[in-house]
Amino acid sequence: MEPIDQQAAEEKRSGKIEESKGNTGISRRDVLKLAGAGGLGLLLGSMGIDGLLKGTPLGSNFAEAAKDTVPFYGEHQAGIATPAQNFICFASFDLSTTSLGDVQQLFREWTGASAMMCSGRPVGDETGNSAHPPVDTGEAVGLHTSNTTITFGVGPSLFDARLGLAAKRPAELADLPAFGGDNLRSEWCGGDIGVQVCADDLQVAFHAVRNLTRIARGTAVLRWTQEGFQRTSTAAATVSDTPRNLLGFKDGTANLDTKDGALMQEFVWTQPADGPAWLAGGSYMAVRRIRMRIEVWDRSTLGDQQATFGRYRDSGAPLGGNKEMDALPLEAKGENGQPVIPMNAHVRLAHSEGKEKMLRRSFSYSSGIDRQTGQLDAGLLFVSYQRSLVKQFIPIQQRLARQDKLNEYISHVGSAVFACFPGVREGGGYIGQALFEG
Amino acid sequence: MEPIDQQAAEEKRSGKIEESKGNTGISRRDVLKLAGAGGLGLLLGSMGIDGLLKGTPLGSNFAEAAKDTVPFYGEHQAGIATPAQNFICFASFDLSTTSLGDVQQLFREWTGASAMMCSGRPVGDETGNSAHPPVDTGEAVGLHTSNTTITFGVGPSLFDARLGLAAKRPAELADLPAFGGDNLRSEWCGGDIGVQVCADDLQVAFHAVRNLTRIARGTAVLRWTQEGFQRTSTAAATVSDTPRNLLGFKDGTANLDTKDGALMQEFVWTQPADGPAWLAGGSYMAVRRIRMRIEVWDRSTLGDQQATFGRYRDSGAPLGGNKEMDALPLEAKGENGQPVIPMNAHVRLAHSEGKEKMLRRSFSYSSGIDRQTGQLDAGLLFVSYQRSLVKQFIPIQQRLARQDKLNEYISHVGSAVFACFPGVREGGGYIGQALFEG
Repeated sequence: MEPIDQQAAEEKRSGKIEESKGNTGISRRDVLKLAGAGGLGLLLGSMGIDGLLKGTPLGSNFAEAAKDTVPFYGEHQAGIATPAQNFICFASFDLSTTSLGDVQQLFREWTGASAMMCSGRPVGDETGNSAHPPVDTGEAVGLHTSNTTITFGVGPSLFDARLGLAAKRPAELADLPAFGGDNLRSEWCGGDIGVQVCADDLQVAFHAVRNLTRIARGTAVLRWTQEGFQRTSTAAATVSDTPRNLLGFKDGTANLDTKDGALMQEFVWTQPADGPAWLAGGSYMAVRRIRMRIEVWDRSTLGDQQATFGRYRDSGAPLGGNKEMDALPLEAKGENGQPVIPMNAHVRLAHSEGKEKMLRRSFSYSSGIDRQTGQLDAGLLFVSYQRSLVKQFIPIQQRLARQDKLNEYISHVGSAVFACFPGVREGGGYIGQALFEG
Repeated sequence: MEPIDQQAAEEKRSGKIEESKGNTGISRRDVLKLAGAGGLGLLLGSMGIDGLLKGTPLGSNFAEAAKDTVPFYGEHQAGIATPAQNFICFASFDLSTTSLGDVQQLFREWTGASAMMCSGRPVGDETGNSAHPPVDTGEAVGLHTSNTTITFGVGPSLFDARLGLAAKRPAELADLPAFGGDNLRSEWCGGDIGVQVCADDLQVAFHAVRNLTRIARGTAVLRWTQEGFQRTSTAAATVSDTPRNLLGFKDGTANLDTKDGALMQEFVWTQPADGPAWLAGGSYMAVRRIRMRIEVWDRSTLGDQQATFGRYRDSGAPLGGNKEMDALPLEAKGENGQPVIPMNAHVRLAHSEGKEKMLRRSFSYSSGIDRQTGQLDAGLLFVSYQRSLVKQFIPIQQRLARQDKLNEYISHVGSAVFACFPGVREGGGYIGQALFEG
């Protein structure tokens, strides 16, 4: 490289860091300054009065920063029962080490880096040193925290002979059984470790996956990734604001209410009695990459589409119902004596007797075109969390795979399951510690 | 399919369309009601008083709707000199017909549908009829207009023997020459027709590409598509708010000021004297899919990264400068007698003597991982508009291809050029008419 006057450059740079602020007037670096290092005292200690004086006035911005931040530390990992953001970058990793110590170190570092990124901070010293690679890759500088959550789980393959953890595998953490109509491709399946990154800014989510990948160098490598989105131009505050999937229908109407703690305990969080101990307070994640045959769907009639879902497209109300949130009139018959909600309608089969519930946290995806068919490679990155795969996800999916009229229009091309760890408290160790060191 | 009581369903549905509204309290359907059909008189005429009564109160929302809308009709196509949105869905199409009449009809329909989507309306009658496929695919119902722009161009291949338009090809509309270091793959290159859809909501942008694709059935098929993004969590209102690319550097600092009409005429809009007549008021678009070798970049030092771009990472200021918008100190030398901005720095070569300017309108992309290397398939969907490819894009890119230090970290994998039509006035015909019928 051409030599540059490093010292002069450093001096110039340090005095004039410009930075952008968004609608709320608060940026990631503000958050660092305001919320970092545990309080103002520590802040002064770590930055020096000089840094503080150059900073943003303290005070009014703090509440806004908090509004834009989901706490990383806590009883449960964030990104499960916390509100769904607008974007997902899902990453599946395979280990490239057989050393349990390496994996412990990886999760130790990932925990620290994730805590920083989820509070809007770069993963390392931002002031930089020209002679070293930057610790943080920089593309999220000046961006909001964007409610970033990072959620870690481990797949069945982690418990093979490599790390000596076979005895700790939960009995039900196994590759999903084959479902009728599955069209799985290995490049969208499995993984030793699954990481769900969600944020309200796609660039911020990308930044997290990239930096986690970088930290993993030598210990784990990416196996597959998938970006996904929801609509970003409406707020998710009201019940009628259920997002629409790429088939044009509201998706998630009957989802579990994450504010209902009892429901979460019953259907989402693994209980101590369920075993193993390292997973208590965690959850099983199922991920399915579901390709939608959009071009075929678009040629079907509105009546057929509505009969397929069992809901009206515009209102989201169940057929025979009035409003989106109405109970399903499963027994209602039309004038012709047939059920108003067809026997093979998606909502009927997904609901069944209402016993098997799971928390869905899905996103649409669009990944260019399928080279084989020339059609859009778009659909749903289905993500669900449940206390038990065997009692919840599997029986529901078996029912859907057998009968769901929607199967004419979709194809499951990817599949993975992960046991997601419970959360950790700040200063209380690292994510996964009870498994790796317990 | 299972029979459903169609009549009852229709009645129920029509009376109770629920719809979501976002932060601004205005939705696509509001826009339809408020801005549709040319004004309140026509609105009443087409909807009936009944429709109006069911609608949203007129008045205060109108300004908000307009704020979220970029006019489709005008002297120039929107999406070129209009402000860049947060997302792009770029689509390249190949004709599947040899009939010029088919192509005329396609652009006639595309023009009408685009005008509707860019004003927040569905592409067709939204009330639907159960016995027919919905005219609009529905996934943007309830979403904001999101500043959607749709910009059409035609590639060199359109002027081959099929349509009989060879004599109308502008001399400089040809595939780009091979540049040193090009690593082009056919699946990301070329196309008879290029359509740039941009919006502040990715789902809204996807909706547009999908519906345009659907309208094209029988006449044109997708050749390639690519989604892209910018950060969404800062506003683009101030100069210091230049977005960062995935190498962590501010990108677009020295871009043309689109508010400067004289600059636009000189560097962006094709002039009548340039010929051909059908292109006057249009612009040439260059699209390059530039893969970034992110993992290699991340191992290079900050000093090396800054020398590569010729700018400081944090502030975006040129090396030896103070602020992002400072002029490049191209003559400045450091204590060692070497240029402060290295001779092979990206900014120096892109700037050269400052004569060749173009309007860049690029987005980052992240498309999973590269199967061959296991590394992130991420980078820049470079898009530029210029009055002349031969005088602007090509000499700049030749200079960069030869010397740019950035070439160590990037690889051009896709390439296409399109001649983008001038705009049309409302009621003044369809996009491309002067080419197809002139």
